Amino acid sequence: MRIIKSIQNQAIKDIAKLKEKKYRDMTSLFIIEGEHLVRMAQEAGNLETILVDENELEKYLDLISEDNTIIVNEAIVNKLSYTKSPQGIIGVVRKREVYVQGLSKVLVLDNLQDPGNVGTLLRSALAFNYNQVFISDNSVDLYNDKVIRASQGAIFKINIKRDSLDNIFHFLKGEKFKIYATALTNNSVFLEELKPSKKCALVLGNEGNGISDTSKNNADEIVKIHMSNKIDSLNVSVAGSIAMYYIKGEK
Amino acid sequence: MRIIKSIQNQAIKDIAKLKEKKYRDMTSLFIIEGEHLVRMAQEAGNLETILVDENELEKYLDLISEDNTIIVNEAIVNKLSYTKSPQGIIGVVRKREVYVQGLSKVLVLDNLQDPGNVGTLLRSALAFNYNQVFISDNSVDLYNDKVIRASQGAIFKINIKRDSLDNIFHFLKGEKFKIYATALTNNSVFLEELKPSKKCALVLGNEGNGISDTSKNNADEIVKIHMSNKIDSLNVSVAGSIAMYYIKGEK
Repeated sequence: MRIIKSIQNQAIKDIAKLKEKKYRDMTSLFIIEGEHLVRMAQEAGNLETILVDENELEKYLDLISEDNTIIVNEAIVNKLSYTKSPQGIIGVVRKREVYVQGLSKVLVLDNLQDPGNVGTLLRSALAFNYNQVFISDNSVDLYNDKVIRASQGAIFKINIKRDSLDNIFHFLKGEKFKIYATALTNNSVFLEELKPSKKCALVLGNEGNGISDTSKNNADEIVKIHMSNKIDSLNVSVAGSIAMYYIKGEK
Repeated sequence: MRIIKSIQNQAIKDIAKLKEKKYRDMTSLFIIEGEHLVRMAQEAGNLETILVDENELEKYLDLISEDNTIIVNEAIVNKLSYTKSPQGIIGVVRKREVYVQGLSKVLVLDNLQDPGNVGTLLRSALAFNYNQVFISDNSVDLYNDKVIRASQGAIFKINIKRDSLDNIFHFLKGEKFKIYATALTNNSVFLEELKPSKKCALVLGNEGNGISDTSKNNADEIVKIHMSNKIDSLNVSVAGSIAMYYIKGEK
């Protein structure tokens, strides 16, 4: 256990740098804040360091350990926080990205840019028993604070991997996955008419432009959702969640 | 048609005030921006005034009319815009809130605070043929720019009404609606087991706290969605959209 009270301290400066994607990429670490997320990261065993505000020690006594806790002051918490009310607790978490074998339901995110959508989809994927989420390397950073917040901690509990679409589809084809991509085209099959394969991947496309040609070319089926013609499309996190609800994974 | 080139002009100052809820409430007007939304408001017939950047006139010639167009410069567009790239076109739109009679499917939002969620739900409600959205008067302002953007223009095409929950439920009971509220309680019915009534209202609750006691007490059924126990809950716009997809309206 250490006590640090200066925002000029080098350890604190290093942690603060993790607010930038560049440093998250270099170190494979990222920051989270608030009791709910820190407890979920702790449960998942990904927590490297916990920083606790000296005024909130009692509240977090069970989280504090000799090994990995730094007691800090409010100024340091505020410096590290993304929000106005950081609840006096910050975690430094190690990224843990994997390709898991033998999966049954996976989600593929093709160039998603809105962090709220990505986080919401991680949350839904966990809720509907998806085993893995792949995200294309041109998508928003998974460790953006808004992704983490919208995921409500799902990011610690589901297997994730960022890679090129080519590598992702190469893996999926090798593992004999059926690939379903969502798009509102004339030759799309309605979700309700689909007989989903046990081992399948659902591909969702960019908020403005939909799925890429790479996804289109790799898809076994193009799938769409029944909807009124009064509006062009659904929000991608809604469309993806409806499709995952329909093509649920096994527990 | 008028031409205004000074950001000090009183008409421009009055429009800029509409960025604040207080002035939107006083005038029943709100601002939108970008070609897509302005065209949708135009189609819906709610557009009071269009402001077009003098450098973008050609692009918007078909929208310009003698009656309601103001030609402005880029500085004015930037002053009125919420975003960094406003596309040279701003609309001033009149609120049009109504209670429609004889509805078959309505959505009730009970104390929703996230503008992205509310906008996304308006978009899904339109997509799944809901006829009206009620929003409780303690919810986020419907005319917040983030609501409008997330709605993708659905806000112009669906009947909306902000009122107290008491008034909303009084209306629904009077019109003999079945009321389904969503909550993860032990006595909830699974969505899949529900035999939805033709005339029904779906109630969604606050992001952190769920539905209010008023909603609970007025509900004929409490409904929940099958999900894994690995996560506490779904995002409310996802849960609401799945429920609306399941309990679709008629065209």
